Amino acid sequence: MTATLLSGVLTEVLIPVSAVIGIAFALIQWVLVSKVKVSPDQRHPVPASGGDKNGYSDYLIEEEEALNDHSVVAKCAEIQNAISEGATSFLFTEYQYVGVFMVAFAILIFLFLGSVEGFSTKSQPCTYSKDKTCKPALANAIFSTVSFLLGAVTSVVSGFLGMKIATYANARTTLEARKGVGKAFIVAFRSGAVMGFLLAANGLLVLYISINLFKLYYGDDWEGLFEAITGYGLGGSSMALFGRVGGGIYTKAADVGADLVGKVERNIPEDDPRNPAVIADNVGDNVGDIAGMGSDLFGSYAESSCAALVVASISSFGINHDLTAMFYPLLISSMGIIVCLITTLFATDFFEIKQVKEIEPALKKQLIISTALMTVGIAIVSWIALPSSFTIFNFGVQKKVKNWELFFCVAIGLWAGLVIGFVTEYYTSNAYSPVQDVADSCRTGAATNVIFGLALGYKSVIIPIFAIAVSIFVSFSLAAMYGIAVAALGMLSTIATGLAIDAYGPISDNAGGIAEMAGMSHRIRERTDALDAAGNTTAAIGKGFAIGSAALVSLALFGAFVSRAAISTVDVLTPKVFIGLIVGAMLPYWFSAMTMKSVGSAALKMVEEVRRQFNTIPGLMEGTAKPDYANCVKISTDASIKEMIPPGCLVMLTPLIVGIFFGVETLSGVLAGSLVSGVQIAISASNTGGAWDNAKKYIEAGASEHARTLGPKGSDPHKAAVIGDTIGDPLKDTSGPSLNILIKLMAVESLVFAPFFATHGGLLFKIF
Amino acid sequence: MTATLLSGVLTEVLIPVSAVIGIAFALIQWVLVSKVKVSPDQRHPVPASGGDKNGYSDYLIEEEEALNDHSVVAKCAEIQNAISEGATSFLFTEYQYVGVFMVAFAILIFLFLGSVEGFSTKSQPCTYSKDKTCKPALANAIFSTVSFLLGAVTSVVSGFLGMKIATYANARTTLEARKGVGKAFIVAFRSGAVMGFLLAANGLLVLYISINLFKLYYGDDWEGLFEAITGYGLGGSSMALFGRVGGGIYTKAADVGADLVGKVERNIPEDDPRNPAVIADNVGDNVGDIAGMGSDLFGSYAESSCAALVVASISSFGINHDLTAMFYPLLISSMGIIVCLITTLFATDFFEIKQVKEIEPALKKQLIISTALMTVGIAIVSWIALPSSFTIFNFGVQKKVKNWELFFCVAIGLWAGLVIGFVTEYYTSNAYSPVQDVADSCRTGAATNVIFGLALGYKSVIIPIFAIAVSIFVSFSLAAMYGIAVAALGMLSTIATGLAIDAYGPISDNAGGIAEMAGMSHRIRERTDALDAAGNTTAAIGKGFAIGSAALVSLALFGAFVSRAAISTVDVLTPKVFIGLIVGAMLPYWFSAMTMKSVGSAALKMVEEVRRQFNTIPGLMEGTAKPDYANCVKISTDASIKEMIPPGCLVMLTPLIVGIFFGVETLSGVLAGSLVSGVQIAISASNTGGAWDNAKKYIEAGASEHARTLGPKGSDPHKAAVIGDTIGDPLKDTSGPSLNILIKLMAVESLVFAPFFATHGGLLFKIF
Repeated sequence: MTATLLSGVLTEVLIPVSAVIGIAFALIQWVLVSKVKVSPDQRHPVPASGGDKNGYSDYLIEEEEALNDHSVVAKCAEIQNAISEGATSFLFTEYQYVGVFMVAFAILIFLFLGSVEGFSTKSQPCTYSKDKTCKPALANAIFSTVSFLLGAVTSVVSGFLGMKIATYANARTTLEARKGVGKAFIVAFRSGAVMGFLLAANGLLVLYISINLFKLYYGDDWEGLFEAITGYGLGGSSMALFGRVGGGIYTKAADVGADLVGKVERNIPEDDPRNPAVIADNVGDNVGDIAGMGSDLFGSYAESSCAALVVASISSFGINHDLTAMFYPLLISSMGIIVCLITTLFATDFFEIKQVKEIEPALKKQLIISTALMTVGIAIVSWIALPSSFTIFNFGVQKKVKNWELFFCVAIGLWAGLVIGFVTEYYTSNAYSPVQDVADSCRTGAATNVIFGLALGYKSVIIPIFAIAVSIFVSFSLAAMYGIAVAALGMLSTIATGLAIDAYGPISDNAGGIAEMAGMSHRIRERTDALDAAGNTTAAIGKGFAIGSAALVSLALFGAFVSRAAISTVDVLTPKVFIGLIVGAMLPYWFSAMTMKSVGSAALKMVEEVRRQFNTIPGLMEGTAKPDYANCVKISTDASIKEMIPPGCLVMLTPLIVGIFFGVETLSGVLAGSLVSGVQIAISASNTGGAWDNAKKYIEAGASEHARTLGPKGSDPHKAAVIGDTIGDPLKDTSGPSLNILIKLMAVESLVFAPFFATHGGLLFKIF
Repeated sequence: MTATLLSGVLTEVLIPVSAVIGIAFALIQWVLVSKVKVSPDQRHPVPASGGDKNGYSDYLIEEEEALNDHSVVAKCAEIQNAISEGATSFLFTEYQYVGVFMVAFAILIFLFLGSVEGFSTKSQPCTYSKDKTCKPALANAIFSTVSFLLGAVTSVVSGFLGMKIATYANARTTLEARKGVGKAFIVAFRSGAVMGFLLAANGLLVLYISINLFKLYYGDDWEGLFEAITGYGLGGSSMALFGRVGGGIYTKAADVGADLVGKVERNIPEDDPRNPAVIADNVGDNVGDIAGMGSDLFGSYAESSCAALVVASISSFGINHDLTAMFYPLLISSMGIIVCLITTLFATDFFEIKQVKEIEPALKKQLIISTALMTVGIAIVSWIALPSSFTIFNFGVQKKVKNWELFFCVAIGLWAGLVIGFVTEYYTSNAYSPVQDVADSCRTGAATNVIFGLALGYKSVIIPIFAIAVSIFVSFSLAAMYGIAVAALGMLSTIATGLAIDAYGPISDNAGGIAEMAGMSHRIRERTDALDAAGNTTAAIGKGFAIGSAALVSLALFGAFVSRAAISTVDVLTPKVFIGLIVGAMLPYWFSAMTMKSVGSAALKMVEEVRRQFNTIPGLMEGTAKPDYANCVKISTDASIKEMIPPGCLVMLTPLIVGIFFGVETLSGVLAGSLVSGVQIAISASNTGGAWDNAKKYIEAGASEHARTLGPKGSDPHKAAVIGDTIGDPLKDTSGPSLNILIKLMAVESLVFAPFFATHGGLLFKIF
């Protein structure tokens, strides 16, 4: 056992400093984005300078159509307003419901955990170091509840901020698109970066502050302290669940509804202002893809940190009170913020995008650069923040680990993320043969398109699963559950960049919608479409990261749960565990059935409303009358709020019911089953949906000889492709990504309630 | 330890006698079916008697159109011939390829198992009773190889006989449909019964004879004897794999190809003789749904018997050489044959079907009657064939079990099968709201139809999984792995009835095709359609049974494998096992991707050929020229043979590769993972496909007010329904049902090779 190179004091300084740097960087990006003006009267054209190539002060560099057309700007501003208002009002409605849940669940946490020792205020022997005295279970109950609330609030704030930024940036991207695709790209990407950095830095900062405040009470009882901190992960993830599911239903009900009547029945283009559901559709991108994804990744981040911390607290780091080593997970995240900051500059300042075909490579380069730099970063952190040798808690025994072994654990997670990202890209980008094959199958109609698309999704699971399996094997073998937790952290260490390229997609999508609605020229729409196509792929990549990290995180949480519930093995060959395993593997199907049906029913309502408006509002198709956008927004809002409750209950109640009635062994089986089964459906659903979307875009763009034989818009193959795209919508944006949360959330909930289940659980088996 | 009421000698007599009764009953049914003549010149009309209400000698009871039209009969005979020839030629081609594989794999088994003790001919201490001497590993190698070949041949014969009977019965059903729906039902059902009884009785008889022959060599070494017998299950299942996959690709390539051009593009009805793929489509029903299903269920039956026997051989039954108790699994199957025989009479002799709406209830009654009677049967067998108390091997220890506990194990499997059957019916029959909802969603197009259909499939998993989980829990708790094996046997004990109502479906489907092709009247087509609609539901029920029993069987085999590989726990929380679990859960996706893509590609080829014929053969659409049916048959044959190899290799090689390189722990993980994940996909895929098919039929039939608002044929909702039906084809008939075999086959293969893996496996971990 040697000391760490980095002193405890310096650690205490470095973490908050990195977080503050991250926040400052996000604010600078925001300022840069805000220089694009959307209110025409405030505009003061600057003479062409050309000196600054990043395009935030050179308005007239590429003078083009409509650049000085005040009415277009005004129209964009108006549409932006409508979208922003719709999104804000939805999120506030959602938060009201979720707030009630949050309070109720907080009370439940307090009561359940408090009851473990009968609400006694007496200190007790520690769970793992029996010779020491730890704080009472009541303290754990109180602080777990507090950290749950903190996590929930941070998650909500993260999602809300992301939405605000996205709705702030969408019209600005449209307006910049008048000057060229490069300008528009930078605005969209910077806005994504604002969200990415705010989220990563906030998550780190709140966690850091909470730990330090909790320490005032807990003092040297680190075991109790970090047990209580796990509530932070639970709070983050439970909000993410509602964000993802509610937002996902919202966005897809609107999207499917708008497409079915607009594109299929009325033959009007996507985002046509005559379509009554068009505003709801654009609102959906912001509440689903932005706010939902933000909460989701924040949840993963919070959970992997908590899982690592709770295991570390009962390893030599915690036992020896080695603060720097204990904070290793937070230091990795701090390093991640700095690395992502440098990486971002490569996209916004070091290079410039001039052509459409450079967009995807630029985004891919972001991934590669951040991964390469982060590898060095991890090496540095592992070298300075860890003793050269230490022990890690491994289901009852302490396992000897070296610092370079931990480096490998983090690094393999990081690189597995990159592999998953690239495989996802290969299967969802229309630059490669899989999507082109799917597009080609549209020749024989929608049925073959769907068959090929489903097969593609199934196939796309193979390599990511091997990547996850290898990282699990390596990190598990090297450093047990702690290894897996830090591998997850490694995958999430470049979260700021990941979120930036991820948020960029829906912003571009919105920008295209605004261009269409504002009646801007075909050329501008083409540029935003190009941004959007790249965004579809990056969205799929982001989902790949989200699910990959979710798999690792939930395994780490599962391991922590098992340790805390004091079971030494989870033997498949015992009836209690096996029934858990098979029922757990079923849960993702149950959950998907609920969410898909919800989207379907909500979309049907939307279709009826859109049809009603087309049939009853005279002059709507001719463009002389305005549709009632607000009614469609209301339908989406009501449907998603109502429909998010049953799947939410399924996820939140399952661990409680299983734990209370069947006990911790069966619950272990359920967690393992839902993990190994959910990962597969989530990956295949996301990729199938992404592939269908891009197959449609491939036909529409007609960029190759092959693509032109399938098009143009309105041809039979194109119609078949639109059907595939519509089917893919709930798969890739509702049920698929929500599954990440299902597997993580059940694991973290089990972890938080583990002491209760271990004491009072398994009623059924106790009775019989 | 008490003796059994039934003496060993009587047991040795009762089993073959029941098997012979089963075969005799099948032959009687065949004779009854053959009384319907399809060669017009041999016809000798019998005067209306009315005395025999079962319709095999009362030709003129309901004199109707075309009953005396010799040209129609001749046409039916001609079509029947074409179908029969196509099916026979496909199966022979398939068997050639499969034969090569069979020989190669037999050699592999011999070499691998022989190498365990270095091909030594010396006797060795037994694995479980170390104080006794067992036959050498070389004997195990030889006899395993022999029993593998026996299982393979029996499976092939079962599939082939089923196909022969079905192609013999299809035209006869059509001709009987002229006299009423009741007559046609009886012919179709009797033919199904021929197959069901032949298969159940043959499987039992061959197994019984093999055991007795092997005993000549093995003598008192029952441990070795029943180890070697497991090869029978492997042989049965590996043939079933190729039968299911090859047949599945064949049938769906033809079906999808025929539908896409015929129904969608050319707007001609299903089974129109102008469609060049129509014969291939009808051949497909016979080779896929009949021969494939037959081999599959035979495989399940053989495997569950083998799993039960191998566990029994190391339990007190085997140790005490209690022959009657040892043969308990075979006695259950014998009782099953007798019970099913009585049940069949309820459908064919005790009641008569007069109306369309009585068909489904009649088939359902079959299930209920057989289950109720069999419960009594199991009680009797358990009472007379088991000592009142005995011990069962349970991972290293002997567990005390009572005879009534074993009764519960078998009975719960049986009843779980019934529950799964009814749930499947609820989700796939258009008499209930789920399918009607799916049909209703066609109003808004194909996309919502697909979304609702997928959601329905996911939802339909819930109750079957709970049913399986409960049976596993109960039987596992009562009698460990033996309990699960006999629960599987319980579910399969009514296999003869299950297969009868299952085979009835494709026969009716074919009958409808022949009616259409022979140009028979609309009224006759309506009757065969009604038979077919009920057949779709029973096919789904059959698939439910197949997958439910597969889940239990593979768990039992898995348990036997673990015992034989001498691992005491399969702990999820070890890296070796966990990576196996997650990769195993991925395999069904990989496999489905392969099979679905195969169907897609083969269908595309078929579409091109059908289009080519429509475009180049003058007068084809007008009905003045004949299409080239043979070319389409050839395309389906070639495609399915070529495409069945990669998925076949995936399933057959995975256990070998994992076992050799990663060892038995990882292999255990793979088996558990593929089991819990594969069951879900298999159930959801079958039910989704069945629901789409019946949603389409619901719209076509227009039997209710609601259905009529969606129709008629050719309306937009109907077109959307056809797209769903086409997508469902590969799901319900290729990838879904093949997954049963995936999970069973990997388990039985692991079991057979367990001694090899335990000795020489895990190379990678040995090296590093």
